[in-house]
Amino acid sequence: MRQLKLDKAFTLMESGPVVLVTTHDGKRANIMTISWTMVLDFTPLFAITTGEWNHSFAALRKNRECVIAIPTVDMLDKVVGIGTCSGADTDKFGKFTLTLVPASVVEAPLIKECLANIECKVVDIVTKYNIVVLKAVAAHIDRARQETRTIHAVGDGTFIVDGRTIDRKKMMASKLPGGP
Amino acid sequence: MRQLKLDKAFTLMESGPVVLVTTHDGKRANIMTISWTMVLDFTPLFAITTGEWNHSFAALRKNRECVIAIPTVDMLDKVVGIGTCSGADTDKFGKFTLTLVPASVVEAPLIKECLANIECKVVDIVTKYNIVVLKAVAAHIDRARQETRTIHAVGDGTFIVDGRTIDRKKMMASKLPGGP
Repeated sequence: MRQLKLDKAFTLMESGPVVLVTTHDGKRANIMTISWTMVLDFTPLFAITTGEWNHSFAALRKNRECVIAIPTVDMLDKVVGIGTCSGADTDKFGKFTLTLVPASVVEAPLIKECLANIECKVVDIVTKYNIVVLKAVAAHIDRARQETRTIHAVGDGTFIVDGRTIDRKKMMASKLPGGP
Repeated sequence: MRQLKLDKAFTLMESGPVVLVTTHDGKRANIMTISWTMVLDFTPLFAITTGEWNHSFAALRKNRECVIAIPTVDMLDKVVGIGTCSGADTDKFGKFTLTLVPASVVEAPLIKECLANIECKVVDIVTKYNIVVLKAVAAHIDRARQETRTIHAVGDGTFIVDGRTIDRKKMMASKLPGGP
């Protein structure tokens, strides 16, 4: 996996893919599936919705770091499986045969099988709305990966796979970081 | 456009489509294009990232309501156009030939051409992170629409169109509202 410039990391998240979030509580790593995420700025800051109902939340609150890993459509059944069992009683990396790779800055691991991984620090928790504010500190992408289509949860048990890409770079030039 | 049950409205947003947000400042309506959005719960509460840099933000802060309208791929050039001009000097409904329809609860209008419209009240603004917390109060969907594919902004001037849908309802049953 190669380094991705931090100012490009928001482009992994803006389209709204389902992501895997890894944590480490000092003893062991865990993973959760999250589709309630948002970009907050280009630096980038991200927001995710999570709380006590996720076993990973305790580690997130304690160690204040995580990795956002971006899976692709060939990983859908792992993604759904991870989202429907709990780290409280399951070693999810073992169960779903995912390979942990040490991250460069945080203790939470990267997931080797994913298209990209974003190392993040927790900068704030807006408790009232279960919003965790994350700052990306390093990003990695697998440029050799053949399958790059991400998946989008609808919330009713169905998932939308990325279709074709339409280029509107010229029309958008004035609004993109770096400007026209 | 038919009523959509409020407890289904989050399914319009969870997959991360680009949306149009309409506002009304008491004098006139405006629209902005937003792709930084997130579901907060199933009631549903939503979060969007916006601030002073959007002309619509003043109306949002003043009247504390808006409509989230979901456009589809046939509307891409309108969506990009709306996102790259300002309501400060442009009547966007006129310029992009969109039809305003009165909403049922809020003063901001629905957009007739969109697949769905969600009427929202502003419940909070987390100023530090430019997060606006919205509560949906009514939702509408156009069941007769042929084109239903939404669009996902990458953030680099390209847009991903919805591809095929994969059903994992059985695997997800324990996690869906309403339960297994």
